[in-house]
Amino acid sequence: MDKKAVVGIDVGGTTVKIAFIALSGEILKKWEITTNQKDNGAYIVEEIAASIIKERKELNEELLAAGVGAPGFIDVDNGFIYEAVNLGWKNYSLQNEMEALLGLPVIVDNDANLAAGGEKWKGAGENARNIIAVTLGTGVGGGIIAGGEIIHGESGMAGEIGHISSVKSGGARCNCGKSGCLETVSSATGIARLGLEAVQREKAGYLQKVFLKDGSVTAKDVLDGAKQGDVLAGKVLDESMEHLGFALANLSNSLNPEIIVIGGGVSKAGDFLLEKLSYFFKMYAIPKIAQETKINIATLGNDAGVIGAAWIAKELISQKGLDAGAR
Amino acid sequence: MDKKAVVGIDVGGTTVKIAFIALSGEILKKWEITTNQKDNGAYIVEEIAASIIKERKELNEELLAAGVGAPGFIDVDNGFIYEAVNLGWKNYSLQNEMEALLGLPVIVDNDANLAAGGEKWKGAGENARNIIAVTLGTGVGGGIIAGGEIIHGESGMAGEIGHISSVKSGGARCNCGKSGCLETVSSATGIARLGLEAVQREKAGYLQKVFLKDGSVTAKDVLDGAKQGDVLAGKVLDESMEHLGFALANLSNSLNPEIIVIGGGVSKAGDFLLEKLSYFFKMYAIPKIAQETKINIATLGNDAGVIGAAWIAKELISQKGLDAGAR
Repeated sequence: MDKKAVVGIDVGGTTVKIAFIALSGEILKKWEITTNQKDNGAYIVEEIAASIIKERKELNEELLAAGVGAPGFIDVDNGFIYEAVNLGWKNYSLQNEMEALLGLPVIVDNDANLAAGGEKWKGAGENARNIIAVTLGTGVGGGIIAGGEIIHGESGMAGEIGHISSVKSGGARCNCGKSGCLETVSSATGIARLGLEAVQREKAGYLQKVFLKDGSVTAKDVLDGAKQGDVLAGKVLDESMEHLGFALANLSNSLNPEIIVIGGGVSKAGDFLLEKLSYFFKMYAIPKIAQETKINIATLGNDAGVIGAAWIAKELISQKGLDAGAR
Repeated sequence: MDKKAVVGIDVGGTTVKIAFIALSGEILKKWEITTNQKDNGAYIVEEIAASIIKERKELNEELLAAGVGAPGFIDVDNGFIYEAVNLGWKNYSLQNEMEALLGLPVIVDNDANLAAGGEKWKGAGENARNIIAVTLGTGVGGGIIAGGEIIHGESGMAGEIGHISSVKSGGARCNCGKSGCLETVSSATGIARLGLEAVQREKAGYLQKVFLKDGSVTAKDVLDGAKQGDVLAGKVLDESMEHLGFALANLSNSLNPEIIVIGGGVSKAGDFLLEKLSYFFKMYAIPKIAQETKINIATLGNDAGVIGAAWIAKELISQKGLDAGAR
């Protein structure tokens, strides 16, 4: 057993993704279990541990550590969950409990940060030391890596790129308590909302056809319409991407990343989306930043979380000197 | 000689500030020399070194290292100046030359970053691990400290808070090549420009009186007028502080600092300024960030640079293990 590995765990509201990952980043085995929501998530950790202990028997590599990603506010230094609403956890010492069950060193971080870490290590982040990662899905998630480290901020809230204020007045209400957040205009939900508002206002073109047929408009409809050259869909997408470009340019003016990684469902529009986004990014970025900052589409999809969790586990064992002779 | 100290050096376009500083942060001696602009700054470093070597003879403490702040783009890992326009330096190995002349380990950083570091260590930053520092002077300078470390970004441009885009279209031209930068609306120069434009448009109140008397309007005039309740001056200041509050809220939404430090000439308006700024900051910050983030006026004035330079020198010797037994 001279081969070493770590386990990456990505705890979501519906499923928990788990993977054994070599120190090289290669996924050796990955699987999922259902997230047990019963009793405010009281059984989640023991079910994860039981599943890992079972699968570990077939593993040829020695497990050195575990990394865990969870949604919510986390005290990363202590692996303590202040609150993870989707799971029912509150003031929960995740790291301690997981360490006791697995008999391994455990490190915990926010799931969006770990998606950024995964893309950094093995994805579109190309292992750069300075990365901004954004996920355009139901909401807008984010993670910031500066000088090779995940930025956590004073109370673990750093990276909340989705709650950058984008619409100064009259913006849509956001779950965070503010209005006009980036999430309200650049998430899939936000793009769909802007599309619906536009079609109700102008009743024209491709989106109107979709609306008459489906009774609604999705982000994909807006992207499809814009790709086909529909004027209204193009305007909606431009509005959304101008907000995103403005927010990312201003973050980049302050943080000077090498690479910005765009993930999530909306990013499936690929180069078409990047072209729009780059146009607005360059409009608002310092010329040298505009010229040097790469914008890439995420490549790891749903694996980003477990790979990011494995990355922090690998960093942990390297800090502890546990990786001597490991490969 | 069991007492140890470092030397902090702050190289500006007109003067070089130098100080011997104890590892506790106490300034033991500070002085200035004139910046020798001759031959593209070719003599600056040797004149600094000669001055330090001379003053060092009277110092009771043993010097362990030097920290240097310089304006411009810097490769911090190598203490290499890509370009410092105000000094005439280009592709200049500042660290190597200074180490050879002083016979001490030397570390170099951007002057605005070190002002942030100084306020962190001994000023309004209260030694917090997560700080955003902004200097509102002729321009708008900035420094970001995250997880206890200065953030440099991929090519040393991080912290350029003054070049966050604030006015989306029709903004004033900025030296950086863009338009509508924060610097064009929130620096002393920017506030004066907004004041002048306002008085030329509306020809009313306190600013009109100042303009008729002086033929111009300064940032101080705007602040004085606003303090006295002049409507037009108040509107100008609100416009400026809304831009600053928006920019700092969005940075804080992404970085979650404990403290924001406001320095520079404009910050002399003190609590009156903070009240205005906080109002707009809270409007655009995530509720928890709005509630928890402190905004303080800088306390170190012109000493921030040398104290910040001493801070990185102290960090350097601690990394190198040179501070064993030091106090």
